[in-house]
Amino acid sequence: MTVDAADQLAADAGRFEAMLETLLAPEPLEEELARPDRLVEAMRYAALGGGKRLRPGLMIAAARLFGRDDEGVLVAAAALECIHCYSLVHDDLPAMDDDDLRRGRPTVHRAFDEATAILAGDALLTLAFDLVADPRVHADAGLRLAASRDLARAAGIGGMAGGQMLDLAAEHSSLGEAEIRLLQSMKTGALIRYAARTGARLAGASSQDIERLTRFGEVIGLAFQLADDLLDVEGDAAALGKAAGKDAAAGKATLVALKGAEWTRAELSRLVGEAETLLAPYGARAAELAGLARFVAVRDR
Amino acid sequence: MTVDAADQLAADAGRFEAMLETLLAPEPLEEELARPDRLVEAMRYAALGGGKRLRPGLMIAAARLFGRDDEGVLVAAAALECIHCYSLVHDDLPAMDDDDLRRGRPTVHRAFDEATAILAGDALLTLAFDLVADPRVHADAGLRLAASRDLARAAGIGGMAGGQMLDLAAEHSSLGEAEIRLLQSMKTGALIRYAARTGARLAGASSQDIERLTRFGEVIGLAFQLADDLLDVEGDAAALGKAAGKDAAAGKATLVALKGAEWTRAELSRLVGEAETLLAPYGARAAELAGLARFVAVRDR
Repeated sequence: MTVDAADQLAADAGRFEAMLETLLAPEPLEEELARPDRLVEAMRYAALGGGKRLRPGLMIAAARLFGRDDEGVLVAAAALECIHCYSLVHDDLPAMDDDDLRRGRPTVHRAFDEATAILAGDALLTLAFDLVADPRVHADAGLRLAASRDLARAAGIGGMAGGQMLDLAAEHSSLGEAEIRLLQSMKTGALIRYAARTGARLAGASSQDIERLTRFGEVIGLAFQLADDLLDVEGDAAALGKAAGKDAAAGKATLVALKGAEWTRAELSRLVGEAETLLAPYGARAAELAGLARFVAVRDR
Repeated sequence: MTVDAADQLAADAGRFEAMLETLLAPEPLEEELARPDRLVEAMRYAALGGGKRLRPGLMIAAARLFGRDDEGVLVAAAALECIHCYSLVHDDLPAMDDDDLRRGRPTVHRAFDEATAILAGDALLTLAFDLVADPRVHADAGLRLAASRDLARAAGIGGMAGGQMLDLAAEHSSLGEAEIRLLQSMKTGALIRYAARTGARLAGASSQDIERLTRFGEVIGLAFQLADDLLDVEGDAAALGKAAGKDAAAGKATLVALKGAEWTRAELSRLVGEAETLLAPYGARAAELAGLARFVAVRDR
């Protein structure tokens, strides 16, 4: 492959983070009265603390495939990443997964306190819907509104938040394959799907291309989850960014646990193949997205 | 006065709750994969558990003043109420105000559990931005987007969530009048202001009328907070819906504590007067909103 996906992802992440930095400024905007220092600090700690920026990278690359690569896409990607970061802050809370570390640093409720972590998560979630309405995202307000509503559905009870609820319930029961797939499609799949779909949409792709990228996002979401689960069983903590074996120890239901590592590796290959097939009509222009698909599937490199 | 504000508020609340009931249905919508039972139940428990429905009532009455009174206004009011209800669920959490009762029933984390309460709050907050995008809210997508962005600013770091952060910090310090006013304008004022402003906007009011109703909402918000604080000092638990004296015992900074009950009653009268002056141009048509202003200022009747 001619494009190194990890390098491209890192370059996009740099531009993205510079934008996110300005969007999390301490100065209040129009219609805002003030931005309390401690809350701004906690939000910045949560959102500017690194990470692969996979979701923004995917949105940026999908938009670029259809010829758009400007700051408006970065703003839309920031909205999506605010949702992702809020979910990490709340998932780490003592009442949820009770994690002390995230990306090698104390979690938000450890670095600040629990009340501040709850509020920082709430405020990041809310900010996402301010950002996606930004005129830079797209000249057409109707399209921005559609992207906003899609984001609410991907993040809400029928998407990410619902998936986290199923995940919590799963700790006390054993799930079958269909249930695990539903849980993962909601908890992690919905936002990753949104990233690819919305990148295409913001770049003015045809409805056929938007549907193709939507399916590409679904495939990437499945691969991401399988690679993550495999890494939890086989991998090292450095690649995973958290303690290996933790999910297995917590009795979390995964397809790896249900069907084994060999099946999982074969399924990952199949998914990368499907992603490449979906991208075939775009030829060499899609090399970057194809590289991202392989990058996601082979997380431990 | 010819309109009994309490009766009108109750009638609007009935129509409003019937709409909210359908919007919190257990069936997944388009783009949603499933709605986990327990999460739907917790969201319904939080949002359909009564309350005065002041914010929806204010939005509905403001829209009616400018000639609009249909189900689209109820959907917008539901979006706003979802934000209010999520904030109650999160504020009641052990790490925040640690309340066991709300409106005479166990709080969500008591009736369910803490993780479910966090997620139910998150999902209600997210749902608000799905609802405000509903085509029934207004035919013009640009106007719906503006209402959505306004809602994000009213609810976020520069509004309600920021105000709750200031409120938590205030328990460890003594605030002056300006600081208390800022805190209250953010924590409770921003959403009440949004209610009146958005009702006018959705009904196609002129920008001058929208500005007038925005100020009316600010005045109502100030009166609401003062009446609440006064009731905490003087009132009975039944009217307040929570234990009297609790805020004072927690050392919460209020203007009543700072300036006394007599000053507060005089300020409430002044605010009702300002509200009536703002409504004067609308004559008898504004009797309902004027009644609401008096109703808010005299909470213990």
